Amino acid sequence: MEKIFRVFSLKHLLLVSIALNVSLILRVMNLSEKEILNSWSQEEELAKGHVSNNRHLSSSSSSSSSSFANTRIEAEDGGEKVINLDHVIAVAIIMLSLPGLTKTDFIDVMLLMFFFQCSGDPTMYEKYWQQVGDKTTIVIPGWQSLSYFSDVSNICWFLEPDFAKEVVRLHRVVGNAITENRHLVVGTGSTQLFQAALYALSPQDALEPISVVSAAPFYSSYPSITDCLKSGLYKWAGDAHSFKKDGPYIELVTSPNNPDGFVRQSVVNRSEGILVHDLAYYWPQYTSISFPADHDLMLFTVSKSTGHAGMRIGWALVKDTEVAKKMTKYIELNTIGVSKDSQLRAAKVLKVLSNSCEPNSSEGECFFEFNHRQMATRWKQLRMAVQKSGLFSVPEFPPQFCTFLGRDFKPQPAFAWLKCEQEEIDDCESFLRGKKILTRSGRHFGFSSKYVRISMLDRDQNYNLFVERLSNIIIS
Amino acid sequence: MEKIFRVFSLKHLLLVSIALNVSLILRVMNLSEKEILNSWSQEEELAKGHVSNNRHLSSSSSSSSSSFANTRIEAEDGGEKVINLDHVIAVAIIMLSLPGLTKTDFIDVMLLMFFFQCSGDPTMYEKYWQQVGDKTTIVIPGWQSLSYFSDVSNICWFLEPDFAKEVVRLHRVVGNAITENRHLVVGTGSTQLFQAALYALSPQDALEPISVVSAAPFYSSYPSITDCLKSGLYKWAGDAHSFKKDGPYIELVTSPNNPDGFVRQSVVNRSEGILVHDLAYYWPQYTSISFPADHDLMLFTVSKSTGHAGMRIGWALVKDTEVAKKMTKYIELNTIGVSKDSQLRAAKVLKVLSNSCEPNSSEGECFFEFNHRQMATRWKQLRMAVQKSGLFSVPEFPPQFCTFLGRDFKPQPAFAWLKCEQEEIDDCESFLRGKKILTRSGRHFGFSSKYVRISMLDRDQNYNLFVERLSNIIIS
Repeated sequence: MEKIFRVFSLKHLLLVSIALNVSLILRVMNLSEKEILNSWSQEEELAKGHVSNNRHLSSSSSSSSSSFANTRIEAEDGGEKVINLDHVIAVAIIMLSLPGLTKTDFIDVMLLMFFFQCSGDPTMYEKYWQQVGDKTTIVIPGWQSLSYFSDVSNICWFLEPDFAKEVVRLHRVVGNAITENRHLVVGTGSTQLFQAALYALSPQDALEPISVVSAAPFYSSYPSITDCLKSGLYKWAGDAHSFKKDGPYIELVTSPNNPDGFVRQSVVNRSEGILVHDLAYYWPQYTSISFPADHDLMLFTVSKSTGHAGMRIGWALVKDTEVAKKMTKYIELNTIGVSKDSQLRAAKVLKVLSNSCEPNSSEGECFFEFNHRQMATRWKQLRMAVQKSGLFSVPEFPPQFCTFLGRDFKPQPAFAWLKCEQEEIDDCESFLRGKKILTRSGRHFGFSSKYVRISMLDRDQNYNLFVERLSNIIIS
Repeated sequence: MEKIFRVFSLKHLLLVSIALNVSLILRVMNLSEKEILNSWSQEEELAKGHVSNNRHLSSSSSSSSSSFANTRIEAEDGGEKVINLDHVIAVAIIMLSLPGLTKTDFIDVMLLMFFFQCSGDPTMYEKYWQQVGDKTTIVIPGWQSLSYFSDVSNICWFLEPDFAKEVVRLHRVVGNAITENRHLVVGTGSTQLFQAALYALSPQDALEPISVVSAAPFYSSYPSITDCLKSGLYKWAGDAHSFKKDGPYIELVTSPNNPDGFVRQSVVNRSEGILVHDLAYYWPQYTSISFPADHDLMLFTVSKSTGHAGMRIGWALVKDTEVAKKMTKYIELNTIGVSKDSQLRAAKVLKVLSNSCEPNSSEGECFFEFNHRQMATRWKQLRMAVQKSGLFSVPEFPPQFCTFLGRDFKPQPAFAWLKCEQEEIDDCESFLRGKKILTRSGRHFGFSSKYVRISMLDRDQNYNLFVERLSNIIIS
C-alpha cells in the first residue's frame, strides 16, 4: 500500500474512487466488456517485439489476489494489446478531468479500452471440447513427473512417449505430414521450435550471421523473434522476394500462410538455402489436405490444430539427425525441456481427436468436420459482410480436393486478410479502429497498410459482433 | 526400416543381435541398470552448451513406441549425460569386435554406460509426495485453458492468479523472501527467467554487449546459456573475482551457491553493477533461513523447492516495473507465455506444501521438516563416507539459526562439492569415474579439476550405493 500512497496524492485517490464508481455503474448497466467489444488483434502481437508505446498511461493498485504491486503502463495501440481494468480506470480518471466531455465520448473510449480478450485466441474451439465432455479430462497425481527426463531412448530426451505416439497417429489419420524416418522434437509452442531451428541451422563459426527471410506478407513475429537478442548466429533479412545477398540463408515458408491463407512454396530457390516449413495451419478445418507434407523441417502447434494455446505445446518433424540434436540442445539451454504436464494433456486431447476422426468412429462428430463447418459459416458471414459494406475485399481462393474430408472446398483460413478498397483510406487499421474494430495493420507483415489481419478464431459472440459492425460500414 | 538397412550391413545386424543377447543376459543376471550404477552428474549438464563429444558412437533402431528414426550419437563424458540402450548396444558391438576383451572389461564398460538416470534429478522428493497422497492430484478438463491469457490485469499476463497467490503465501510461510511491492514473473523454469533477466537488464543500444559475471565456482550452465546465441546484448565475462573491466556489468549471485553451498553476496561491488540473485536453494531443507531476501531481482524454481522439475516452472520477484515488463516481453517472444497446466499444478502443490507447514497444521508432516531430515541423514552419511575413505574432503559450514525451523543447523546443500585431497589426483572426475561414480568436474564451474560436484537429491537406493562406493575408496 505504501507504493500506492507514493504514487497517488489524495486528489488522485478521489479520482480513482470516482473511476471505480463509473466502472461499477457500467457493470450494473450490464455493458459487459465481453459483449461490448470486438478484439481482432492477434496473439502474435504479444510476440512482436517492437513495442511502440504511442500512449503512456500509468496506474497502480494492489491486486486482490496477491500482495504484488500491480502497476501497468500500457500502449493503447501499436504496442501490446493486453490491457487491464486498471488501465481503463486510469483513462477514465483522465477523461473525467477533461472539460466538455460528452457521455457518448466517454462511453466510446471506454468501449475501445475493453478489449482485453483480444489476442485472436483460438477460443472458438472451446465449443467442441465442451461438447466432448470428460473424455479429454486429465488427472495428474502430485508425485508424478518430478524428473526432468521423459524418454532417455530418444534424442529429444524430454519428449513424452505418449505425446509422440499421438502426434504420429494424428498425422497418419489426417494425412498431412510424413512422420516416417523423422525425429520428433517437442517445444514450448512452435515459437520456441522456430528459434531452436534457427540455432540448429545457423553455422556456428561463420564470419557474419546467416540471413533469415520470408516472403511478404509474412508472420509479423518473425522479425522480432529473430532479432530480439541481436544474435551473431542469424539475422532477419526481410522479404524473400527482394533477397539478393549471396551465400547461405534460411527461408521460412508458412503454408497456408499467416496472414493471407495462401498455400506457399519457397521463393528464393538458391542452392545455399535452408528451408523451415511452418505448417501450423495445414489442418482440414482451414485448408484442403492435398498431400502429406514431406519437408526437411516442419513445425506444428496444438494452438492452431486443437485450439489449446494455453498448453504451449508445439512439435517439429525433423529429417536430419544432427539438426534434431541441435534443436534439442537449444531447448535444453533455453528451458531444460518442455512441461511434462502439458505434453501429457496434449497426448490425451490428440488421442480423443484422432478417435473422433477414425473411419467408423462411434466417438461423436469428427473434430475437423465440426470445426470445418464452423469456419465455413464464419467465412460465409464475412464474405456477406464485405459484400454488404462494399468498402473492403478479402482474398478469393480456388477450391481444391481434400484427401481427408473427401471433397473439394475453398480455403477458409484462420485469419482474414482484409483490404480497404477505398483510395482515400491508406491506413486500414486506423480506419477500422474508428469503427470499433481492432485489427493488425498490414505494415507489421512487411506489406501495405491498406491491408489488415483479422482473427477468425474468437468466440461466436465476438465474431458475430465483428461481422455485424463490418457490414454496417458503408460509404457515407 | 529402410533407414536401418541403409545404415547397417548384414554383418552389423549380426552384431546387433549378439549385443541384444548380451543385454538380455545382463538382465537375466539381474544386473539392473538402476541398481548397478550411480549417476551423480547434474541436470545442468543438460544445459551446459559446450558439448565436447569425446567419443562418438552411432547406432540406429526403430522405436517401439513410434515410427520415428531413433538414432543417437552420444558423448560418454564431457558432453551430454543422457544415454540410451541403443548407445549401450552400439558400444557392446564395438567392444565385442575387439580382440583380447575380458569379461570384466566388458561388464565394467557396460556398467559405466548404464547411467541414463543421471541428471541429479530431484527424485528424492517423490517419497514425500507419494506419502501425501491424492491431496496434490490435479484434474484438468479438455476445454480448460485454451486461451493464451491468464490474467490480463497483470504485467505478466500469462501468470495464473492461483499460482501467484500460492507463491506469495509460500514465501510468507517460509519467510525467505519479501514479496510486497514486487512483480511476479513466471517462467518455463528459472533458466528461462535468467535469460529474461539478461534481456531486461542489458542496454538495448550499447556499442558492445554488457559483461555477465559470477564468482567461481559458479553454476556451470551460466556461460553456455549466456553465450549460446552470441548475443549482441550480453556476453559471459567469467569469474567475478577477476573482473576488472570498466562500465556496466551484470553479476549473478547464487545463494546458497551452486555448486559449493555457501551463502553468497556480490563480489564486484561497483556502481555500474546490476545484480541478479538466483535463490533456487534458499529453502529450509538446504540452509537456514536467516532473513527474508530483499533484492531487486530474485529467481526461484519449483525444481529445487518442491522437486517438480518436470513441470518446468520458475518465478522471479522483481522490484522494478520496467524490468518486469521487459522480462515478460522476453517470455512472450521466446515461448508466448508459460504452460497453464503446469502453473495450475504447481499452484496445487504449493498450496498443499504451505498447508503442511502452517503453524498447528493437521495436514501431516511439514514438507520442509521431512526433507530437512532427509538431507541431514544424507549429509551425515556422506561425511562418514568421506571420513572412512580418507581421500576426500567436503566443505565445512558453520551452524546458523533458521527462523523457519526455529533452531540452529549447518547447511546441507543440494550438491556436495567434493575435493580429491591426494596430491597425485589432478582430475577428480576421472578418478571417480574409474570407481564407477559419475560426477561433474570442478573445471565446468570455473574452478579446479581437483573438485567435483555431486547431486544429493537422487532416490535413496542410488544415494546409498554412492556413499557405499565412496566410503570403499581407500588408499591402496
